[in-house]
Amino acid sequence: MTKNELNETLSSLRREYEEYVSKNLKLDMSRGKPGATQLNLSMSILNEVNADSEMKASDGTDCRNYGLLDGIPEFKALYSELLGVDPQNIIVFGNSSLNVMFDYISQCMTHGAGSTPWLLQGKIKFACPVPGYDRHFSILEYFGIEMINIPMLEDGPDMDLMEEVVKDSSVKGFFCVPKYSNPEGKTFSDDVVRRIAALKPAANDFRILWDNAYSEHDLYDNSDELLNVFEECKKCGSEDMIIEIASTSKISFPGAGVAVLAASSKNIETIKKRMFVQTIGYDKLNQLRHTRYLKNKAGVKVHMQELAAVLRPKFKIVLDTLEEQLGGTGLAEWLKPNGGYFISLDVLDGCAKRAVELCKQAGVILTPAGATFPYGKDPRDRNIRIAPTFPPVEELKIAAALLCLCVKIAGVEKLLSE
Amino acid sequence: MTKNELNETLSSLRREYEEYVSKNLKLDMSRGKPGATQLNLSMSILNEVNADSEMKASDGTDCRNYGLLDGIPEFKALYSELLGVDPQNIIVFGNSSLNVMFDYISQCMTHGAGSTPWLLQGKIKFACPVPGYDRHFSILEYFGIEMINIPMLEDGPDMDLMEEVVKDSSVKGFFCVPKYSNPEGKTFSDDVVRRIAALKPAANDFRILWDNAYSEHDLYDNSDELLNVFEECKKCGSEDMIIEIASTSKISFPGAGVAVLAASSKNIETIKKRMFVQTIGYDKLNQLRHTRYLKNKAGVKVHMQELAAVLRPKFKIVLDTLEEQLGGTGLAEWLKPNGGYFISLDVLDGCAKRAVELCKQAGVILTPAGATFPYGKDPRDRNIRIAPTFPPVEELKIAAALLCLCVKIAGVEKLLSE
Repeated sequence: MTKNELNETLSSLRREYEEYVSKNLKLDMSRGKPGATQLNLSMSILNEVNADSEMKASDGTDCRNYGLLDGIPEFKALYSELLGVDPQNIIVFGNSSLNVMFDYISQCMTHGAGSTPWLLQGKIKFACPVPGYDRHFSILEYFGIEMINIPMLEDGPDMDLMEEVVKDSSVKGFFCVPKYSNPEGKTFSDDVVRRIAALKPAANDFRILWDNAYSEHDLYDNSDELLNVFEECKKCGSEDMIIEIASTSKISFPGAGVAVLAASSKNIETIKKRMFVQTIGYDKLNQLRHTRYLKNKAGVKVHMQELAAVLRPKFKIVLDTLEEQLGGTGLAEWLKPNGGYFISLDVLDGCAKRAVELCKQAGVILTPAGATFPYGKDPRDRNIRIAPTFPPVEELKIAAALLCLCVKIAGVEKLLSE
Repeated sequence: MTKNELNETLSSLRREYEEYVSKNLKLDMSRGKPGATQLNLSMSILNEVNADSEMKASDGTDCRNYGLLDGIPEFKALYSELLGVDPQNIIVFGNSSLNVMFDYISQCMTHGAGSTPWLLQGKIKFACPVPGYDRHFSILEYFGIEMINIPMLEDGPDMDLMEEVVKDSSVKGFFCVPKYSNPEGKTFSDDVVRRIAALKPAANDFRILWDNAYSEHDLYDNSDELLNVFEECKKCGSEDMIIEIASTSKISFPGAGVAVLAASSKNIETIKKRMFVQTIGYDKLNQLRHTRYLKNKAGVKVHMQELAAVLRPKFKIVLDTLEEQLGGTGLAEWLKPNGGYFISLDVLDGCAKRAVELCKQAGVILTPAGATFPYGKDPRDRNIRIAPTFPPVEELKIAAALLCLCVKIAGVEKLLSE
């Protein structure tokens, strides 16, 4: 296009944009929250424990009372089946897997990981696959841990770079979402999982926070398959590197689910030592509710298929709109994930902030540009995380169309300024 | 008594003891857990949130979903009324007040209390009113904080000594249970509360963990009254010293209740800053369940009176047995608490461990002797914590009688050895 043509295009796009502005929209595509329709599908869970229910867990523990620090046996059994980990290597927590990760990092800061407390080691660092989950970065930033960007390739983090970076003994680990990654929806390939298990970090207190948040969250029948990281680590004798975390937050209720951690026997022991001082036990009635409803892996699968039926049309609207509006323009790139909660959109370099700002001014809130990178700084200012799960389908149509328009405006503005 | 008389007494006591041993008892008076009868009185709470309930909090928040970091407004309002603190100065947590305290100390270790992180300050110390709650001591021991014994007097900790001890800037605070203290059931007098509020510690990052675990836990109509510590602190400008903690653990269910924290606006701000990184929010459905059932202060009072009716006979059996068996013998001293969960028994110096061990060998588990002191070391080996709430009345009768017998045996053994 000539400069004149670009200017004309921009004028026309801006007219279209003004129409959106005049609609006084108030839509939110910012966070990976389930919508009400989806939450309604889990309501029976709440009837599983009532005033007339049996209050005892399978081992006879009265779930109303104190005790059973590491969770009721039937909930451990459920996640043992889901994650392919021995029940003895599982601890059941409260409602937040983020809290489990924060507490583990905090434990490393004050008590180390079989080492000197991290806080007493001077400057320490974490590798950060990017784009990634903003809440992981926030934990690291809060504890003053320096973050090093490791780009995500097609099948997981750039392992050549990772293998280099971990030669520095001040690098203590990394967070990752190995299945349906946040925000790209990528699943680590078998090769990447094997290379992670085979890592030989210089730090002997290196820890990988394996945030398997979307372990059961397939959108379609042909789901991604993730290798069992502990099986691979066993071959390399590196099980102590992995702290796996999962939860029912997006299986049942984000605000009232149950989180779990899986780890080597050695790590389980140090975590329990801390927990024994920290609490007398987590909410066992909620664990009971969940296992009575979900039952086992087959039960979870049926339930997740019901949720997927609600989520598929939402992902389809966004992906169709992207294709219709931006396909072939060269203004953006994206992937079609097989599960998880996000679609990651890469726009022209330097255009993400502008596009998100334009959306905001027209009443559509997106995750802030940059949030998918450490310190909120996307070096190329191009990544936008789309969370299509919360808005109802009709609102989503409007929000997705507006986003495409804003990406075009930002893109054309950029081309004109060059 | 002559040595011969003592020997005869001991033989007779031992014959009595052997009869208990032959009964193969298996009783537990070790922890302050409610019994089943008491828990059954709270069952309706579980029906307050079911599949047909309204899921929204009073501010419109869907309690099933993410969000509302510091708790639903109606739960804050409930504890605002109970503790006499502005709702803005309250944060609602998960099921464990112990966890709230642990996390706060952990926060001070890694981020300080408006100061250098405690972990980077070298050796730091806490004052410890003794006898006290073993779980408080465990937190301090876990974080390597040195503990200094401050004896409990009739109306609270020895404030003359406390005022001396806090002149050392490495002394960073203390834990206390100001109402119906654990284990003695003492309530701090107005004078003690005022002297605490007026403390001028050398450390500018001094914190008092005001563990108001039994704020509503009266056994009788003429209950103890505790001054509102924040009101007193306001007069001295010392509100930042106090972190108050409370919970419904012994109002509803120990394993599935709701904990709260009350603090100055400045402290609330730093705690929320940490929480924002640590979690997306605690279980709001459980907060909803609890407020719908308990409603307000009047509702809590009615409920607690029902619980007290179950607890009173249990306290009476133990106190009556102590009076019948040990009254006037000079072998033991105890107080009659007006609330809380414990009876504290002081036996002859050097006899607590032996008495508890004798009970154990006859099948009655008590809190380990020494547990009510830092590092598990009772300098006079004389304090025994009795937890009368868990066993049914009939079992309690036997356990209390056995305990008195063991106290006598240990006492006579001691007299004989002198």
